[in-house]
Amino acid sequence: MWRWLLAAVLAAAPMIASAQLTQAKTMIVKADEDRTARFLPVHVGGKVRKEDLGYSYQWPGVYFETRFKGVSISMSFEDGANNFNVIIDGKPVMILRKPGATTINVNIHAGGPHTIRLEKRSETQYATGRFYGFRGVAASPEPNRARQIEFIGDSLTVGYGNTSAFTQCTPDEIFETTDAQEGFGPLTAKHFNADYQINAFSGLGMVRNYDGREHAKYRLPMLYPRALFDDPTPAVQPDWHPQIIVIRIGDNDFSTPVRVDESWGTAEAMAADYQKTYAAFIRNVRAANPTAQILMLYPADDSDYAVNTQKVFEALKASGMARLDSMSLPPMAETGCDGHPNIHDDAKDADALISYFDAHPDDWQGK
Amino acid sequence: MWRWLLAAVLAAAPMIASAQLTQAKTMIVKADEDRTARFLPVHVGGKVRKEDLGYSYQWPGVYFETRFKGVSISMSFEDGANNFNVIIDGKPVMILRKPGATTINVNIHAGGPHTIRLEKRSETQYATGRFYGFRGVAASPEPNRARQIEFIGDSLTVGYGNTSAFTQCTPDEIFETTDAQEGFGPLTAKHFNADYQINAFSGLGMVRNYDGREHAKYRLPMLYPRALFDDPTPAVQPDWHPQIIVIRIGDNDFSTPVRVDESWGTAEAMAADYQKTYAAFIRNVRAANPTAQILMLYPADDSDYAVNTQKVFEALKASGMARLDSMSLPPMAETGCDGHPNIHDDAKDADALISYFDAHPDDWQGK
Repeated sequence: MWRWLLAAVLAAAPMIASAQLTQAKTMIVKADEDRTARFLPVHVGGKVRKEDLGYSYQWPGVYFETRFKGVSISMSFEDGANNFNVIIDGKPVMILRKPGATTINVNIHAGGPHTIRLEKRSETQYATGRFYGFRGVAASPEPNRARQIEFIGDSLTVGYGNTSAFTQCTPDEIFETTDAQEGFGPLTAKHFNADYQINAFSGLGMVRNYDGREHAKYRLPMLYPRALFDDPTPAVQPDWHPQIIVIRIGDNDFSTPVRVDESWGTAEAMAADYQKTYAAFIRNVRAANPTAQILMLYPADDSDYAVNTQKVFEALKASGMARLDSMSLPPMAETGCDGHPNIHDDAKDADALISYFDAHPDDWQGK
Repeated sequence: MWRWLLAAVLAAAPMIASAQLTQAKTMIVKADEDRTARFLPVHVGGKVRKEDLGYSYQWPGVYFETRFKGVSISMSFEDGANNFNVIIDGKPVMILRKPGATTINVNIHAGGPHTIRLEKRSETQYATGRFYGFRGVAASPEPNRARQIEFIGDSLTVGYGNTSAFTQCTPDEIFETTDAQEGFGPLTAKHFNADYQINAFSGLGMVRNYDGREHAKYRLPMLYPRALFDDPTPAVQPDWHPQIIVIRIGDNDFSTPVRVDESWGTAEAMAADYQKTYAAFIRNVRAANPTAQILMLYPADDSDYAVNTQKVFEALKASGMARLDSMSLPPMAETGCDGHPNIHDDAKDADALISYFDAHPDDWQGK
């Protein structure tokens, strides 16, 4: 095998004569050497659906990791809908754009073992992607991360258009400039070396989606338990026991006036429904995560969103719910698509959360 | 070979039982099928230095293209300094970040023939990269593009920080957010299906670099003939005969006040040197490109940059130089790094140039 490949390389580059080409030859031959490649064990972050081969996914911020020996690793997809960051040994090496039915193979010089991490960068509200897996030569996996943190929210948690150079974006520009991995959630989680889930969907509110009309068939409490948005089966995730759950929802409920033709009829009725539904949602989250610290976020202003979210928090505290806190976030530059936070805003929000958890180390429950 | 790979795939996925996996198996086996891969003929855009194997390059906007059959193509690098766009069959499929000593192999389903295009996205003023080439199964190449257009300039032509979400950038952020391929030059060239060169270097002026201090060892007229900035050998480019040459230089000469400790002593002396040197530079460009249309760009304002550039143009016209025109460009949003144009500004400048050439079709000299 090895000899055959060397012959092929020599045939391909008949001009090879000088010593300076030795390195290039070595590289190219090595590129094909690992023919013992197998599908490797994968560590998965985020809510996905396990398939017979690989994983299907829709939620933002999903990631896949493995560890391998040698100089070659491949990734196989059936995903024409997503963009991904590919990170090898901690270094971002490529952004994959809608790979489709593709295998990408990366050959590197150093002998390893290496880590590879595939991060879903994009938001796909109405499309499902499939990652078949990594192929390579297995190395002993990294120990699991002890810390787990979950984020629940809307576009502010997705990282919607956060890398855009302008605010007026086409749908395609929103797609291309969204990097969920630079949202405040992943930034916070990575700081604490925690696994994370980004259970967020742009445009959704707690009871009322953006403008009272967007994504009519979906509600956040409906989607939250699911691995895939149109599959009502709850996600199977026996290893997911987050110490911390951060919730940032309500911007869409309150960002446009309630119209008379909406079911609530008045802003007051909608706000009452928001408070009731949000409180019930948190009680469900608490029931599923009895020991988790829950942190509710809201903006540091006097908006209806902020005021009503504080009321939800106060009512839950008054009812005796423990391990529940709230925190306000300062105003942002909002130069991303449609006036969304840009990645500097995301970093500021992450800094605020990092400071908060630094001041509350017990929230990690000894992890 | 084929049978061996199938066995490896089956061994790697012992759970394979259902019909739904057929497509995945087929894909993965096909991924390794093209073992007749050779280095393919490459079409090169931009000033590069041909090496025994592959190409070295520094100028922005460089690109490499080939055409291949089958389902597999690989790219081999020795380049830890650049980011690249990879475009297959016209579709951007990945952004490669500082690949280093790496081979990247992409396997695709459809049988082809396919085109692949590797575009240097980043600016590397003090680093050289090497692309060894594409390996795959050769297909008959595309016919050469009849049109050729050349751009000469500074950061405004580089696309410096043009995809940034903010104006205050670190050097690393400038690097990562620069996409020379979204500069006004490549956008204009692509519109006309023209090959292009981006002979531009951020911070350089015609006689005075930014702030009178940046890149002290370089001047644009010195670098212009070279393939690599520190190699005085003129670029070898027998096939480069641009019909159009667009020049946009002078912003750095005039953007900061001349200090008394600079060699000119006064702004007036520097402006006189600018006019003289710029005129001589254009005469040299004309001598090397006797029939090319030369178009000088300047901002639509009354800045010293605009005023002095118009004087250069008027003097050359008065001296009888033919096939020379000038054009002013409107103000920009300048939300890229350090107040540079963003990609919307680049697109507007490209639109202005496209309108200009639509109104001057003879500039393409029948091509």
